[in-house]
Amino acid sequence: MPANDYDDQNIFAKILRGEIPSHKVYEDEKTVVIMDIMPRGDGHVLVIPKAPSRNILDIAPEDLTAVMTVVQKIARTVIKAFGADGTTIQQFSEPAGGQVVFHTHVHVIPRFEGVPLRPHTGEMAPNEVLAENAGKIRAALA
Amino acid sequence: MPANDYDDQNIFAKILRGEIPSHKVYEDEKTVVIMDIMPRGDGHVLVIPKAPSRNILDIAPEDLTAVMTVVQKIARTVIKAFGADGTTIQQFSEPAGGQVVFHTHVHVIPRFEGVPLRPHTGEMAPNEVLAENAGKIRAALA
Repeated sequence: MPANDYDDQNIFAKILRGEIPSHKVYEDEKTVVIMDIMPRGDGHVLVIPKAPSRNILDIAPEDLTAVMTVVQKIARTVIKAFGADGTTIQQFSEPAGGQVVFHTHVHVIPRFEGVPLRPHTGEMAPNEVLAENAGKIRAALA
Repeated sequence: MPANDYDDQNIFAKILRGEIPSHKVYEDEKTVVIMDIMPRGDGHVLVIPKAPSRNILDIAPEDLTAVMTVVQKIARTVIKAFGADGTTIQQFSEPAGGQVVFHTHVHVIPRFEGVPLRPHTGEMAPNEVLAENAGKIRAALA
């Protein structure tokens, strides 16, 4: 059975409160978009609702709608920013579903012909690479 | 660059028109939910908007919202129907992104502790297994 608690000490809650840094590329009233620090593809970002929720099982409908509106916008943007050929979108709920951080988030991964997703090794991308890719996304949004 | 055409001879368009059969578990004004015939996990379903669109890059916002409302409902339902421990949700856009059928669809896959996603081999599940799992989802929705 899935859990249903929300722990406000999760890493995205800390990022939302500004307690730890992130490469933020977009923000609006209900969402933020940051670079995934363990990207499975170049330009891999996370769309995160500001309101607390654990995952798809408990998120408020209006927050889910806000998140998906931004997912669509960001999918189009990363294609423009990186000249990508497509996108892969993923949302994991609970450990069995692949979830690691227990604040709702949606992965948007730019994809390129012939380039498989990198395995989830837990290795962090160099900070300068994340900063450069964040800059490309911000420029494409501008 | 992604394509932007919609071919109404795709398999989901044919299913929506009733030209080929499917294991339908849910339907409302804007969406249908069917069993994936090549499930990557037991109870793997697809949420499909009725209106034509190719993928996340061109779907109308109101159709995306309708789809995601049903994705949330179905994620909760498959957990109940199968006693699952979580869900994995995926949406692929364009061949590079993993898309095979070019009518927007969102995968909802029930997940169980210690059970990895099955590889996408192209092998179809037995019809009776799909029918049985569809029955469990319909019962959990009722």
